[in-house]
Amino acid sequence: MSTNIGKYTLRLDKSPSITGSAAIGGKKEAEGPIGKMFDIVNYDALFGQKSWELAESEMQRQAAQKVMDKCSLSPGDIQYLFAGDLLNQIVASHYGLRELGIPFFGLYGACSTMAESLILSSMMIEGGLAKKVMAITSSHFCSAERQFRFPLEYGGQRAPTAQWTATAAGACIIAENSQPPYIKAVTVGCIEDKDIKDLNNMGAAMAPAASTTIKRYFQDTLTGPDNFDLILTGDLAQVGSDLLAELLLREGYDIKKKHADCGLILYDRATQDVEAGGSGCGCAAGVLCSYIIPAIREGKIKDMLFVATGALMSPISVQQGQNIPGIAHLLHLSSTPNPIQQGGNA
Amino acid sequence: MSTNIGKYTLRLDKSPSITGSAAIGGKKEAEGPIGKMFDIVNYDALFGQKSWELAESEMQRQAAQKVMDKCSLSPGDIQYLFAGDLLNQIVASHYGLRELGIPFFGLYGACSTMAESLILSSMMIEGGLAKKVMAITSSHFCSAERQFRFPLEYGGQRAPTAQWTATAAGACIIAENSQPPYIKAVTVGCIEDKDIKDLNNMGAAMAPAASTTIKRYFQDTLTGPDNFDLILTGDLAQVGSDLLAELLLREGYDIKKKHADCGLILYDRATQDVEAGGSGCGCAAGVLCSYIIPAIREGKIKDMLFVATGALMSPISVQQGQNIPGIAHLLHLSSTPNPIQQGGNA
Repeated sequence: MSTNIGKYTLRLDKSPSITGSAAIGGKKEAEGPIGKMFDIVNYDALFGQKSWELAESEMQRQAAQKVMDKCSLSPGDIQYLFAGDLLNQIVASHYGLRELGIPFFGLYGACSTMAESLILSSMMIEGGLAKKVMAITSSHFCSAERQFRFPLEYGGQRAPTAQWTATAAGACIIAENSQPPYIKAVTVGCIEDKDIKDLNNMGAAMAPAASTTIKRYFQDTLTGPDNFDLILTGDLAQVGSDLLAELLLREGYDIKKKHADCGLILYDRATQDVEAGGSGCGCAAGVLCSYIIPAIREGKIKDMLFVATGALMSPISVQQGQNIPGIAHLLHLSSTPNPIQQGGNA
Repeated sequence: MSTNIGKYTLRLDKSPSITGSAAIGGKKEAEGPIGKMFDIVNYDALFGQKSWELAESEMQRQAAQKVMDKCSLSPGDIQYLFAGDLLNQIVASHYGLRELGIPFFGLYGACSTMAESLILSSMMIEGGLAKKVMAITSSHFCSAERQFRFPLEYGGQRAPTAQWTATAAGACIIAENSQPPYIKAVTVGCIEDKDIKDLNNMGAAMAPAASTTIKRYFQDTLTGPDNFDLILTGDLAQVGSDLLAELLLREGYDIKKKHADCGLILYDRATQDVEAGGSGCGCAAGVLCSYIIPAIREGKIKDMLFVATGALMSPISVQQGQNIPGIAHLLHLSSTPNPIQQGGNA
C-alpha cells in the first residue's frame, strides 16, 4: 500500500513499472539531438491528414498503436487510458483514440499532462485498481500556434523568450512492478499564480510551480539534488530553467549540475531557431518516451525526478488580462524498486 | 480491495462515501423545479465579476468553499482536487480553485465531468491512496454560449433539439466509508462515435454512449432496471432520453419507469424556454449535489445509477466536418455499503 511522506508526497510502495514507451515526432524533432531515438518520425506535418488537428490525432493513434506493438498488447489488455493534449476540448485525444475502445479518462494539464497521466496511471496500479494502463499525450506546432497565437500564414515574429511547440506524441504502458523504470514516488502539484502575464514567456509562468513541487518533494523525502542523477523538467526551456535554478538556490538547493529540461534536449537551440527552447505536451512526452525511459532501463540513469510543468491559461483569459498560473507534477523514476515494506503488499 | 466484475465494471469493495456536497446556481436554475435545494443561488449572472468566464470561476470557488464549510474541512484536509469544466483549457477550474493550494488534477470530460471526477475520487479512496478528495465542476450559460455557439448579443434562434447550458456548479467530498451515499461500483466509459454531426443535437451524440455504458454495467453485474430505484443520466434532455430508452429497449432493457435525466429535472421545459432541456457540466453536478445526494442520505433513494454523458467535440472539429463522439461514465450510488468481502479490507 502507498505511504504518505510529508504533506505532498506519496510513496508508491509497490513501485509500478513503465513497461513500455513509444515516441513519435515530426521533421524538426527528427533533426534534433535525439531525433534518432524516436520510434516513428514523419516528415509530413499533416501526417497524411486533412488538417493539423487531425494530424495531431493521427500522432496519438500511431503512438498508442506503437507502444501496444512493442509490449505485445492489444487494446483489450489495457483497462484505462489517461490522455490529454493542448487543443480546445482535448480533441486530439478524443479523435485519435476513439477507435481503441479502452475506458477513457480525459485530462487537461497543459504541458504537464505527461506527468499528470503517469501519476494517475501509477496510482491505479499502486491501489490495485488496474493491471495495465496507458498514459498518452501530444502536441503539434501548427495546431497549437494557430489556437494560442497567430495563424501560421501571418508569419508573426517570435519573441526571444517564446518556446517552440513540439510536434510529437508519447505513450507509456504502466503495469505492476516487473522491470525498470519503477515509479517510486509522486508529488502532485498545486496551482501557483505569481502574477505572470506574458504569453510569450511561459517558462517564467511555470518555473515557480516547478520550484515549489521540487522543494516539497525534497522536504517530504529528506533528499536533495545529490540524491539524483537527473532532475528533468519539461518544458521550462532556457528562460524558465535559469529561473528555476535561481528560485531553488534561494531555498538552499543547488540543482545546476543535475538539472536538464526537455525543452532544451529536444532541439539544438544554436541551429534550430526555436528561441528559448521547446514546449508543448509532446515535448516532455517525446523526450521521456524516446530518450529517458530506455536510459533508465539500461541503467544509465539510476534515480531521477521527472517534473512536467504546465501553464494554465487560455487565449481568452490572457486577453481578459488574467495572470498565467502554472502547475508542476513530479515522479521519482528509478532503475530499482522501493524496498519491500514490513506488512506491505509489494 | 476493488474487484473487477465482468470486463468494464469495478466493484469498490470499501464503498467510499460522498460525505458532503454543495450546489450553486444562477437565476434560471433558482426558478426551476429544484431551485430551492441549491445551497447558493445568485441572481446576477456575473456573480460580481467582470466577465462570464470569471463568473464561472467564482461559482467554482464558492462551491468548493461551501462544501468544505458544510463538512467542517479546510483545504489542508483535502489531499486531491479533481476538477474540470467546458471552457477552453478548463480555465474556470484553474482560476476558481487556484487559491486553495490543494494538489490538483485537471480533467476534461465535457458534460460527463462530474461522473469522471467522482469515479477518480472514489478510486483514490478505494485504493488507499487518499483519505479525502474533492470532485468539482461547473458550466455557465453565457461563457459556454459564446465559446461553442454564437455571441449572446447576436440573439440567434435556437433549434428545438438544442439544450440550455446550466449556470451551475457542484462539489463533493469523497472519503472513506462512513455514511450514504456509498459508491458501490463504477463503469468507466469508452469513446463512442456514431457519425452524429449536428452541433444542435447533443442528446443524439451522447445517447449511444449512455446506452453502451449502462448495458455494460447491467451485463457485468447481472442486474437490470428492476434492481434500481433510479437511472439518472446527465444531460441527454428530451431528445437524448427518448433515444436512450429506445436503444436500451433494443438490447432488452426497459428503463422507462426508472429513468430520469438531469437536463429534464433542472428546468421546467413547459415554462422555462430551454428547448430540449438542460446541459453543461453544471447541470448533472447541480442536480446531483442539490437534489439527489440528500435524497439518498435520507433513504428516499436506495440504489441508483448516476450516468453523466459528454459530447467530445470542439467548435473547430465540427467546423472541419468531424463527427461528435460521446462518452458516458457510470457510478452505482446506494444508501447501503457493499457487504464486507471475505478477506477484503472493507
